[in-house]
This record gives sequence, C-alpha cells and structure tokens, in this order.
Amino acid sequence: MTIYDYIDGIKPTDEEAKELARKRNDGLLKPLGSLGKLEDIAIKFAGITGKVLNSAEKRCLIVMAADNGVVEEGVAGTPKEMTRNHSANIAAGVSGAGVLAKYAGSDLKVVDIGIEGECKNDSVIVRKIANGTANFAKGPAMSRPEAEQGIMIGIEMVKLCKDEGYELLGTGEMGIGNTSSTAACCMALTGLDADSAVGKGGGLSDEGLARKKEVIKRALALNKPDASDPIDVIAKVGGFDIAGLVGCFLGAAYYRMPIVIDGAISALSALIACRLQPLCADYIFGSHLSREPSYRYMMREIKIEPMIDLSMRLGEGSGCPLAFHIIGSACAMLKNMHSFADVDIDETYRIDMR
Amino acid sequence: MTIYDYIDGIKPTDEEAKELARKRNDGLLKPLGSLGKLEDIAIKFAGITGKVLNSAEKRCLIVMAADNGVVEEGVAGTPKEMTRNHSANIAAGVSGAGVLAKYAGSDLKVVDIGIEGECKNDSVIVRKIANGTANFAKGPAMSRPEAEQGIMIGIEMVKLCKDEGYELLGTGEMGIGNTSSTAACCMALTGLDADSAVGKGGGLSDEGLARKKEVIKRALALNKPDASDPIDVIAKVGGFDIAGLVGCFLGAAYYRMPIVIDGAISALSALIACRLQPLCADYIFGSHLSREPSYRYMMREIKIEPMIDLSMRLGEGSGCPLAFHIIGSACAMLKNMHSFADVDIDETYRIDMR
Repeated sequence: MTIYDYIDGIKPTDEEAKELARKRNDGLLKPLGSLGKLEDIAIKFAGITGKVLNSAEKRCLIVMAADNGVVEEGVAGTPKEMTRNHSANIAAGVSGAGVLAKYAGSDLKVVDIGIEGECKNDSVIVRKIANGTANFAKGPAMSRPEAEQGIMIGIEMVKLCKDEGYELLGTGEMGIGNTSSTAACCMALTGLDADSAVGKGGGLSDEGLARKKEVIKRALALNKPDASDPIDVIAKVGGFDIAGLVGCFLGAAYYRMPIVIDGAISALSALIACRLQPLCADYIFGSHLSREPSYRYMMREIKIEPMIDLSMRLGEGSGCPLAFHIIGSACAMLKNMHSFADVDIDETYRIDMR
Repeated sequence: MTIYDYIDGIKPTDEEAKELARKRNDGLLKPLGSLGKLEDIAIKFAGITGKVLNSAEKRCLIVMAADNGVVEEGVAGTPKEMTRNHSANIAAGVSGAGVLAKYAGSDLKVVDIGIEGECKNDSVIVRKIANGTANFAKGPAMSRPEAEQGIMIGIEMVKLCKDEGYELLGTGEMGIGNTSSTAACCMALTGLDADSAVGKGGGLSDEGLARKKEVIKRALALNKPDASDPIDVIAKVGGFDIAGLVGCFLGAAYYRMPIVIDGAISALSALIACRLQPLCADYIFGSHLSREPSYRYMMREIKIEPMIDLSMRLGEGSGCPLAFHIIGSACAMLKNMHSFADVDIDETYRIDMR
C-alpha cells in the first residue's frame, strides 16, 4: 500500500456511536453541558473508536527524532549532537516527556527516523531514512520518495501500536533545528509571514531569531514549495520527524485511534495530515497551548483546541501525557457517572447549561 | 483553640525547601523554564511540605454541603431538596466530582455542615450547624458563633485528612443557592457590583438572574456586612458551606498541606481565608477556569491562576481531580527527571527559556 491508499482508506468517525454517546451524556446526573469540553472529548472519543464506553488507559507517546541540515546556518540555540544524545535520554525515560509519560501510565516509542549517527539506547526504534536532512537553505531537505518513506514509517508505528493494544496515542519529536523546518512548512502552507510564524524554538537570541527568519525566507524563495502539495512542502523545507508525525496522524485516522498533538511541530504535522485528508481532524485532540507563534494559526485551521495552559515549551511530546489524564477523565465520566434514572431523580430537575 | 489561634499559628512556607527545589529544577535535563508552570507548581509544593521531593498521590476531595435560606426568594434554578439528594450521590461516588475524583485516585469526604434534613448516605460526615441558613434577604444568614463553628469544622476536616496521611486536598461544595451567597460575600468584600459578580449559577433564566441580583443587592443593603471583617460577611450573607471551606483553606495552611480551589465558591472561601491570613495563598493551587463572573476577580486578588480551561461549570469540586493529575505530574517531574550531571551532558548546553 502507498500513502495514497491509506489517505483514501480513511473513513469518517462513527456518527451513530457519537449520537449514542451524546444521548448517554445528556442523561447523566448533571446539568446539561456542565462538564463542558470534558463532554466533547468523551463524545469525540466515542466517534473514533465506534464505542460509547471507552477506556483510554493503554497509552503510547510516539517520539520522532531526526536531524535537520539547516542547523549549519546557525538557526538553533543548541548543537546538533543534542538530537542524538537527548533522544537516548527520552528513550531511557529520564527526560521531561519520559517522566511525564511514565506518570501518566504511558509507554514511549522513540523512533530514529533520521538522526545523524547512532543513538545510544537500545530501545530506540531505528527507521533511519538518512543521517539528517540536507540543508534546505541550499536545496531541498529531502527527496519526495524520502518524504513519503517518512510518512509510511509514521503509519507503521501507529499500526504497531494498534497491534499492541494501545488505546490512546501522543506525538512528540526531538530534532535540533525542527522549529525552523516547522516554521518554513507553515509559511509555505498557510502564507503566514516570518514574523508571525518563526519563534525562538529551543532558545535563541534576538539576533539568532532574525537570522532564522532570514534563512527561512531565503529557503522558501530558493525551493519554491508548492502550497497545494503538502508532500512537496515536506520534501523541500520539512524534516524527517515532521514526515513521520504526518504519518502518525494519517495512521491514527486510518486505524481509528485517538491521537494527541503536543506543540508546534506536531500541530504542523497534524495540519499537513488534515490537508491531505480533512477527516483526520476528527481523530485528533489538542493538549497544551504552545508558545511557538505558528501554533495558534495552525490549530485554528484544523479547529482543534488545547485543554491546558501551563506555559510549557519543552517539546519532546511533553504536553501529551498531561492531556492523557484529561482524556482518560472524560472517558471515565461518560462510563462511570450515574444517570438521573439510576438515582431516581426526576429528569425535570435537570437544568440546561449549554 | 479558637479560629484566631489557628490564624495566628499559620507560618510562611519553607523558603529553604523552595530554594533547594528551585536549584534542583534548574539542574534538570531541559532548557531553564521550559516546563513552565509545572516547575512553579513543584517549587510551591516543596515550600508547603518543606521537602524538595514530594508525592502528591494520597488525595482527598472535601465537599462541604449545606442549604441556603435565600433559596425561598427564587434565586436558584433547582429546588432545595437537591442539596440533600445530590450530596448523597456525591458521597456515593456516582456524581461528576465523585467519578473524576475516583479516576484521579482521590478519596472523598462529603460533610453535611448544614443540609436541611437528613442525607441518605452513611458515608456523609455529619457536622450539621443548622438545617440550612436563614434567608439573608430578611436578616443575617447565621450568627457569628455559627460562622466560627463552620470554620472550625473545616479546620477539623483538614486535621482529619492530615492524620489519615493525605498529601493533597481539594475543595468542593453542594448547596442549592450557594452562588447567591458567594456573590453576596464577594460584593461585600471587594465592592464589585452585581453585574460583575452575579452569575446564573447552576442554571437560571435571564429573568431569574435579574431577580437574583435584586435580592442580593437588597440583602447587602439590609444586613450591612462589614467588609473589613470577613467573618461578619460570612455570618450576614454567606453560607455554612462557605464557612466550612474557609476553614479548609485556613486548616491547610496551618497543617502545611497543599489545597486546590475548584470554582467560584471555593475561590471566595480561599479569598476570605487570605483576607484573614494572607500567608494562606502560598498553600493554595487553582484548578480550572470557572465561568462564574466573580471567579476571575477573586483569583486575581489572591494571585492564583487556574491550570485548565475546559468550560466546566458543574461545581461539587469537579475541577480539583483534574488539577490533582497536573500537580502530581509536577511533583513527578521534580522527583524523577534526570539532571545534566546524571547524563553527563555539559551544562553549557542548557538554554535559558525563562
């Protein structure tokens, strides 16, 4: 199967299950609408799985790790080898996302989809497309077949999770320079200007930020990515991590699994998946409000909202485990709350707060 | 001991523990400040307990339940007997807060501090001051000794939790009419006008809202609560649930336990506790952003922010279990993340994102 077969194979979520979930929700022992977005989450989840009552306890955070050739232009605040070193830390569960995932009862799959060199942790899943992308300030980041290969790896990881019984997925990334590729793709796809789309990523000086904007503008002028062809955009100015995450979002929709966005890089990947197949949005949840400037624009397009605002800006997928708790709470609400009928209270006492 | 002994006995949080927590946090394997408010939560928690490394796993949601005489003025959308009926549901763990608490591994203590009649659930802790307050539209809601008794009951509940080994507390309430008493207290204490402070509570028509505002304005003119004396305010236009929750916040500060605000009623109670003893604020966490109009004003005064925005408006303490997950995550972060030294990465790679 090619990625296009997967894209064509994505079906709408289950309207009947959503309707039944809505009905059950409306019968629960609370004013209508009083649990707000928790109710929306539970109903959306039902549409994804096709079941009204759901467990969201078996969880996996998929972290795509890759290097970005554009780092040689001085667009990142941290040296490139941090990708390799820190991917090992994430896989070892000792990083921010690792600890938060464990606390949320979530497993981790760290995928080397294009790290430069070898990552020193045996649990890293090696699907290396190349030793990092080429410097897109000087030409395309990768070939089109490589972009498609990256997407297929993401789909493969979701299939693996499905087979292993996971019920809820999260997305994360590790890759020095990947806020540059994200901003470049975002600008190419949405027409946003550099001031709106480019941020300081993992920490840059004001001078560094100005350089980052210049490099991205130059790269877009040089590579001329086709906004109507998201895979061309990934190939020209994206990264292997982005391609992999796009595959995760497509795969989640194809395999009917709920999947969570972390920050700007996964939001961009979700946006690309939705451009390829708009139905994907119905399988995706937000987590925390990212401070990367492009984040809000991309989330607005796909009409997905964050649930949490904790001024976090770590990346790695660290927002997802926090959302896992909320999503699990929503499923528990719909499953375990009693209804008016259960406790023999007259339904006329039920107030409408919607 | 009188409540004034407790108020005088409240000490500042542990600056040394906070400093050590801050130091540990700054050494962790992440850009400085990149886990945002999660870092602030972990440091604040350390100040409360006096320990750098904390567990926030043994949790209890304290729900104060009481009736409000002012309901006879037609200020509530639900009949009074719902207080008694639904308190039993909460205690049985089948309500929204009950289910969310259980999902967060939290126990529940439902306290009948002034329900009219007998609540049909044996697990309800009975500390009934009276069968509901008097109608404050016609005179004071309660006597000053009753307000003080309510506060003492809250302190007693925290002491009980402390003795039972709880590490993290939440606050909730059940009481038809208690958004009226909350708005009245808030207006008396802050000088807010009715349009800013009075909301639809558990569901009211526009007409009902207009009546509610009139009743509260009339009650304030009649009872003339003394803004400089928060206990006078509770006695004149408050409720037993509010008095009990004020005691919870004072007790948490006295016994050095972290405690979480739910919505407007617990926010008002936290505000009163802070007026009685400003140090209380250092022991209190927010949870979700409540839609009751007075909420934001009160939170602004005590400088505590919500962590979550899910458009929830159920009450019962339902926001607290969601915050428990976040607070637990923050403690796990500080406890379990590795440092730069642990993984032998040069600390010069550490970026400052604060």
